[in-house]
Amino acid sequence: MEALRKMIQEKGFGIGHDIVKVDMFLNHTIDTKLLFKMGEAWAEEFRDAKPELVLTVEASGIAMAVAAAHALGDLPVVFAKKSNTSVLSSETVQAGVYSFTHKTQNTIRIDRKYLPEGTRVLIIDDFLADGQAVHGLLSLCEQQKAEVVGVGIAVEKGFQEGGKKLREAGIHLKSLAIVDGIEDGKIILRPDDD
Amino acid sequence: MEALRKMIQEKGFGIGHDIVKVDMFLNHTIDTKLLFKMGEAWAEEFRDAKPELVLTVEASGIAMAVAAAHALGDLPVVFAKKSNTSVLSSETVQAGVYSFTHKTQNTIRIDRKYLPEGTRVLIIDDFLADGQAVHGLLSLCEQQKAEVVGVGIAVEKGFQEGGKKLREAGIHLKSLAIVDGIEDGKIILRPDDD
Repeated sequence: MEALRKMIQEKGFGIGHDIVKVDMFLNHTIDTKLLFKMGEAWAEEFRDAKPELVLTVEASGIAMAVAAAHALGDLPVVFAKKSNTSVLSSETVQAGVYSFTHKTQNTIRIDRKYLPEGTRVLIIDDFLADGQAVHGLLSLCEQQKAEVVGVGIAVEKGFQEGGKKLREAGIHLKSLAIVDGIEDGKIILRPDDD
Repeated sequence: MEALRKMIQEKGFGIGHDIVKVDMFLNHTIDTKLLFKMGEAWAEEFRDAKPELVLTVEASGIAMAVAAAHALGDLPVVFAKKSNTSVLSSETVQAGVYSFTHKTQNTIRIDRKYLPEGTRVLIIDDFLADGQAVHGLLSLCEQQKAEVVGVGIAVEKGFQEGGKKLREAGIHLKSLAIVDGIEDGKIILRPDDD
């Protein structure tokens, strides 16, 4: 998506070989104008799949899920909560998510009644690297027998395995920008496919 | 605000004397249609104060901040991050926030460069009870010499002290719904003032 790619090139920067810093417009400060354009881009990609609900995980996915849901006609948004406890109640469903960035194992959970069986779900998140967070969200949907119609990502790290694995699994994935690598602090973006 | 009050009466419920459950439309599932109406209501209240930035704290404040920022002409949103560490770097400013609900002391922090001196700030959050989270956000603004032009809240617990203290301090506060108490699981709302 051109507007996001342009912003990444103008304002984003890389650290080391794998850290993509975009918190000046995406996940600490949010450029709201860009955000709603991103929502439109996901809506265009996934409208025909007729999602009924947008699912994300707190915290930085929330703004993007809201923008996508808005562009799709104000769908409900459900965000999974991060939890330090692994105690499962009968009312919640949970999945483990390992963070390679923070080297921590988290549990994400939702209240079962907010993800009913058969719901057509669009998953939205800010980053896709190794795919742990998306796999956690997919697991929640699978446990609830909800139907995932697509996965929308803002920034995919194309040099990690998450996106490749999702595509190989036949999941309809749309990443608005794909980073192929970082060279001397500069973010190298993959040429746009649309 | 009528639409929020109606939703609280129809779908919300109380637990014990002080827990207001609204996670079926506000802070776990988000009713996006209602969310953007709430954004409009805050924008109407605060537009004349000419805010330049909307500040909130992760996670459940983010959706509301985005809606308010959108209605105010796509202002930037900055969300403070919750942090378990109290180690302060030269790049961040932080404040302590005690959670009476979870009986925990948290630190919230932002990157200094995203809250420049002199910025006119609108603070948005989902709940106002004892006011700890808002006071943390006010503290961040004060440390950065940013100017708080108002505080917009979705649900104020009118039976706790947070709102009263902010009004007494002369802060322009707009709570879209005020809960006066809980009786047998029913949420008692204060009559609307607008």
